[in-house]
Amino acid sequence: MAAALTLALRGQRVTAPNPNVGCMLVRAGHVVGRGWTQAGGRPHAEAMALDEAGEAARGATAYVTLEPCAHESARGPACANLLIAAGVARVVVAMRDPDPRTDGKGIARLEAAGIAVTTGIGEAEAQRTIAGFLTRRFKGRPHVTLKLATSLDGCIALANGESRWITGPEARAHAHLERARHEAILIGRGTLERDAPRLDVRLPGLESRAPRRILLSARTADGWHMISQPSAIATLVGVDHLLVEGGALTAATFLRADMVDRVLLYRAPVLLGGKPGIADLGLTELGGAHGRWQLTDTRMLGSDRLEVYERASKRDSE
Amino acid sequence: MAAALTLALRGQRVTAPNPNVGCMLVRAGHVVGRGWTQAGGRPHAEAMALDEAGEAARGATAYVTLEPCAHESARGPACANLLIAAGVARVVVAMRDPDPRTDGKGIARLEAAGIAVTTGIGEAEAQRTIAGFLTRRFKGRPHVTLKLATSLDGCIALANGESRWITGPEARAHAHLERARHEAILIGRGTLERDAPRLDVRLPGLESRAPRRILLSARTADGWHMISQPSAIATLVGVDHLLVEGGALTAATFLRADMVDRVLLYRAPVLLGGKPGIADLGLTELGGAHGRWQLTDTRMLGSDRLEVYERASKRDSE
Repeated sequence: MAAALTLALRGQRVTAPNPNVGCMLVRAGHVVGRGWTQAGGRPHAEAMALDEAGEAARGATAYVTLEPCAHESARGPACANLLIAAGVARVVVAMRDPDPRTDGKGIARLEAAGIAVTTGIGEAEAQRTIAGFLTRRFKGRPHVTLKLATSLDGCIALANGESRWITGPEARAHAHLERARHEAILIGRGTLERDAPRLDVRLPGLESRAPRRILLSARTADGWHMISQPSAIATLVGVDHLLVEGGALTAATFLRADMVDRVLLYRAPVLLGGKPGIADLGLTELGGAHGRWQLTDTRMLGSDRLEVYERASKRDSE
Repeated sequence: MAAALTLALRGQRVTAPNPNVGCMLVRAGHVVGRGWTQAGGRPHAEAMALDEAGEAARGATAYVTLEPCAHESARGPACANLLIAAGVARVVVAMRDPDPRTDGKGIARLEAAGIAVTTGIGEAEAQRTIAGFLTRRFKGRPHVTLKLATSLDGCIALANGESRWITGPEARAHAHLERARHEAILIGRGTLERDAPRLDVRLPGLESRAPRRILLSARTADGWHMISQPSAIATLVGVDHLLVEGGALTAATFLRADMVDRVLLYRAPVLLGGKPGIADLGLTELGGAHGRWQLTDTRMLGSDRLEVYERASKRDSE
């Protein structure tokens, strides 16, 4: 399933309106087919993997990151039917398809055809893989990641505004990779006027993946798409993943609106006593602050540490 | 040597004016003697271990956390002489004694008597074990630990001042254990007036280890020893380990004076957007902030994480 999830990531940002899915076909210990949702959403991952496997699919086990679809469409056949027709013996599914046209019907159809189905394997990772799709579907807005690059004491700049650089080159390169994974990137008016950031992707081979630039502001600016409040991100067409890069007021505005799903916290081993990374959130009691975030990944990047936090409750993550 | 270092810790806070040293005697794979500097500084660790070993010390290896002393005093004989007289075959030393009355002379005397001496094993840990003694000796002041209990964004309170609790019970219990390791604890006037903290040790069996309470302030307060600036900590008699507990102005004052040797950073997985843990440090360029701190320990305490940072350069750590 881990390999199937990696295949699913190949479709990130390009499979809309469909979710990016991965599929591995294994027979007698050998991989006989691999597929992932193609640009524009078709072919589906299962169709591509079955096509590669041909006759070898008979008796194989299919690992799919999302329940195979049960609905035919003008764009292609239902994947559940394709798997049955190919004679697959077993299907392992990471998560059910929340699309009401499938939502359990794909699994039921496979089982009715005598195929053994296992579900829930790698579910959390699968949800993470299509977080943009799920958030767009259930909250009607992009999945929002807040990026913070701070000192140990949570500062993003010295008192005089100096902020280059707090984190080192490895952390900054990783932040550029994260930019490439998002369709759009947002900053506030203060950051625009102070830093005039390019917000491009300065990584070899990924230069063309620079996200669209969004400005949170009451006034327009040349070359920027402008929104006046966080809820307006719902109107951003073709944006399922939004990266919020700052500054402190913008971060606080999105947190207050409860529109942050994931936090990338790059921390450098310095103490600055400077400008905080998040402006006043307006909290009046501490109880409400607890239990909202869980650490889902951490790694060293040079002498800096990256911590990734996501919404703690399952209910909120969808 | 690890076991000898653990023995050395038994003397922490009680061996002044002598450093707390540990000694293990091992012969043919068996521990034959264990010793640690006793309250008031005598007997020394080696004398105690040799006393326990008796004749078994002949041909044994001695592991000592500090170079055996070469100077006799009215309070007892030189440990180098005791080891030679006992017929020890080998001595492993973690670090040289910086006391000019020894400083290599103990090792030289052992070698002159035909004893094999190895030095530098566990040196960093040994220095840490007697950090208070070393800082008092070389900087003429106590070793200073700054304790911060913050949110992920570096806040120690909400904007309205609410600060109970950011970290959980496990982190708070650990902070009380750290209190018990310090002879004195310091806060600023703001913390006194806002929180009126008891600063006691609320751990079973350690209640009597509550440190002396020091106030950084221009005005006196009942029950508190008052100092008006960080440099005055040099005058605190019997204090080799000082814990600075806040608030933000006090932390900044000690950092600006370059009088923080160690930082205990307890971090709770919450975002607060509230009051920063460190007030303006007056830094004007980022280059100077880098390379000052190194992470020396980290562990989970419930859902919080403790990170311990120490001065990065060896020169500064003594």
